[in-house]
Amino acid sequence: MAHTPVVDILKGQHAQGATVTVKGWVRTRRDSKAGLSFIALHDGSCFDPVQVIALNNLENYQQVQKLTTGCSVAVTGTVKASEGQGQALEIEATQIEVLGWVENPDTYPMAAKRHSVEFLREHAHLRPRTNVIGAVTRIRNCLSQAIHRFFHERGYFWISTPIVTASDCEGAGEMFRVSTLDMLNLPKDDKGQVDFSQDFFGKEAFLTVSGQLNVETFACAMSKVYTFGPTFRAENSNTSRHLAEFWMIEPEVAFADLSDIAHLAEDMLKYVFKAVLEERADDMAFFAQRINKDAISRLEKVIDQDFVRMDYTDAINILQKSGKKFEFPVAWGVDLSSEHERYLAEEHVGAPIIMQNYPKDIKAFYMRINDDNKTVAAMDVLAPGIGEIIGGSQREERLDVFDRRLEEMGLDKEDYSWYRDLRRYGTVPHSGFGLGFERLVAYVTGMQNVRDVIPFPRTPGSASY
Amino acid sequence: MAHTPVVDILKGQHAQGATVTVKGWVRTRRDSKAGLSFIALHDGSCFDPVQVIALNNLENYQQVQKLTTGCSVAVTGTVKASEGQGQALEIEATQIEVLGWVENPDTYPMAAKRHSVEFLREHAHLRPRTNVIGAVTRIRNCLSQAIHRFFHERGYFWISTPIVTASDCEGAGEMFRVSTLDMLNLPKDDKGQVDFSQDFFGKEAFLTVSGQLNVETFACAMSKVYTFGPTFRAENSNTSRHLAEFWMIEPEVAFADLSDIAHLAEDMLKYVFKAVLEERADDMAFFAQRINKDAISRLEKVIDQDFVRMDYTDAINILQKSGKKFEFPVAWGVDLSSEHERYLAEEHVGAPIIMQNYPKDIKAFYMRINDDNKTVAAMDVLAPGIGEIIGGSQREERLDVFDRRLEEMGLDKEDYSWYRDLRRYGTVPHSGFGLGFERLVAYVTGMQNVRDVIPFPRTPGSASY
Repeated sequence: MAHTPVVDILKGQHAQGATVTVKGWVRTRRDSKAGLSFIALHDGSCFDPVQVIALNNLENYQQVQKLTTGCSVAVTGTVKASEGQGQALEIEATQIEVLGWVENPDTYPMAAKRHSVEFLREHAHLRPRTNVIGAVTRIRNCLSQAIHRFFHERGYFWISTPIVTASDCEGAGEMFRVSTLDMLNLPKDDKGQVDFSQDFFGKEAFLTVSGQLNVETFACAMSKVYTFGPTFRAENSNTSRHLAEFWMIEPEVAFADLSDIAHLAEDMLKYVFKAVLEERADDMAFFAQRINKDAISRLEKVIDQDFVRMDYTDAINILQKSGKKFEFPVAWGVDLSSEHERYLAEEHVGAPIIMQNYPKDIKAFYMRINDDNKTVAAMDVLAPGIGEIIGGSQREERLDVFDRRLEEMGLDKEDYSWYRDLRRYGTVPHSGFGLGFERLVAYVTGMQNVRDVIPFPRTPGSASY
Repeated sequence: MAHTPVVDILKGQHAQGATVTVKGWVRTRRDSKAGLSFIALHDGSCFDPVQVIALNNLENYQQVQKLTTGCSVAVTGTVKASEGQGQALEIEATQIEVLGWVENPDTYPMAAKRHSVEFLREHAHLRPRTNVIGAVTRIRNCLSQAIHRFFHERGYFWISTPIVTASDCEGAGEMFRVSTLDMLNLPKDDKGQVDFSQDFFGKEAFLTVSGQLNVETFACAMSKVYTFGPTFRAENSNTSRHLAEFWMIEPEVAFADLSDIAHLAEDMLKYVFKAVLEERADDMAFFAQRINKDAISRLEKVIDQDFVRMDYTDAINILQKSGKKFEFPVAWGVDLSSEHERYLAEEHVGAPIIMQNYPKDIKAFYMRINDDNKTVAAMDVLAPGIGEIIGGSQREERLDVFDRRLEEMGLDKEDYSWYRDLRRYGTVPHSGFGLGFERLVAYVTGMQNVRDVIPFPRTPGSASY
């Protein structure tokens, strides 16, 4: 007989009295003096386990009494109204088959108690069995599905930009090298440099830091596109917000200006937050109860509020007049730090802000120069409780302006030949943004560290599993 | 005024007489002696361009007559019934704004003529503007959305397994190294070996060849999971079926045996083929007309037919009795080659085959040993017209059997400690398969070379863009 996911039982998809089989892992077992046992059985399909009643007339009741946290079982039984509090339905077992025991329960790392997130990280292969990482996994899936759905419904095409690249346009020196050369026997050229022409790709190759430049080539043909894939930074940052390997979503839209892309960012965030609240109420209730009491209410606020548009220049004035002491001084031309962003979003406005038109000197070469020749058409979304969550811009589509900017920044036109071609052949205004997926999952769940919202985090000194 | 995608015009979502604005690129321009011009305008939203009628009373009609393939324009005009054949609707322009010219139209690489796929590959940043690569891009997107939807509807969770890994369990020596060490100044240990403890991850690290072992950890907690991400092989294979970087889909299912996973593979292929035929009839008609006349009919056949289950041992008998001369000799114990697979699927059965229970000596260490102790619970899906498209297996969940197998194969238990933990703590029967996404896209479109169904192909000697 096919088995039934626990979520279907708890949602009442099988009538009382129906015979069902569920398969999963024991979260806890409790024996009653009345000669029966209660087993909380989870299978990952939803937050709650289902309660299984094992009466002492089961032929292997003695075996059942030896079940410990983590054992795997197949339970056949009858759906019944639950007499205890909490769940409406439970299963009275007619048969319990033990599929797998736990070797030495006393040392099983995932015993049924609260573990620190640091301890769980050291057992990344077992931590999905816990409440917290199970809930994170379902939220992460829900967000990714909602993102794909959001773009698909609006006529966007998913583009898989390359992971390995010999083009280091955006590199800033923080790239991982990809190679098959024998390191103990490196080929050298006549200048004593490593001869990468003998490497697998015939050139020095790296892991991508962003799919943006690549995906612009598709925006300039398909109009509406987005990436959703892994990106890499070889930054030696041991913080709760940095990973060496993380997933990014980067929509790119032809014929869109800064205002269009700001609307897209606002619509997308609201759409995916709604999806989480509707589809994963069980997990969100857990996060609100155990991780961050505002986890649900702050998403509701973002959904209900209009994002406030604010110019960088106005923001500087507001910060200067605020009378607040900031660790980093405020002056036109500086990059906003997290304390500034959070003051503006949390205290001054009390809503998400779309901050626009930043000084060109603190922004990337590809952003479109505004008419003042001092600022660029860039925007960041600053959310209360986290600060910057999205960064985007209109791209410089005017070849002459772009070439001047490359020259100003001391960059070589030759290195950007294919990117310049997009401006030479039927150039169009276009805009896009980037969203770090792990920061989004951390924001939604309230988890403090991005290492706990990705299955196997990669950080300086750590690439296990 | 917001602009309208071409697909909405062609689908009749704007009534005749309505004023619309469309934005896109000129595919062709043809001037009539009657003093008007016909512009085929595409924006990537569907296969067909929309026809724009430019009458000579437009104030910039002289400029319009200079438009060439690839120029970008914004057209405002009236939706009208088309008098020509082909499309039902066209746009009579009241205004045509030229957004971007093509620098030197005579040398524009994407001129409106048939290009070889090899030529297009050398202009990967411009090729999405062609009919063929535009169609591939929409099909690729359609397939990826359908795959996510298929699993999501069935309660599977998407898991992003790591790209960088220090674990080379599945490596077979064909892995790319990921490093930030200065190659001209490598740290060495006292044995003269490279000291990877000083590298970014503190160990020698590689690009993953498969997410399977990692995703098994999630199957053993969440029950139904799948990966969809990039994988890498440093194989020096310059064939039409190999890429150094390609995307894989790998579902992994707890409490599932070989038969369950075979059903899942069959259901998934039928589901995504249906999605393509329903959602991308325009692009599929093009592929049937220009690339492979069977492109549509062979998908329809796969959808309609039951996949035939066949044991490897029976297949060997059939091949030996076939009277066919094969290049590679047939004997029990050999790996089936493409000619064998295609004979079985195309000539002998005339339907997709699920080939099962292969000799253990030609299969991986993690596959479940059958009771005959000679074969493993492995399965491949062989499709007419392509051969193997999916490979999967039931995993060995019995710790003692697994350990004996490691020993037989000369593998070190220590290297598999976290994988073994899944068998030590609440082990369950589980199964999964892998599908190479580019081979799927190539099969659906009829494209001969996987390099033409991924945005920027990575192959030996090639990682441009």
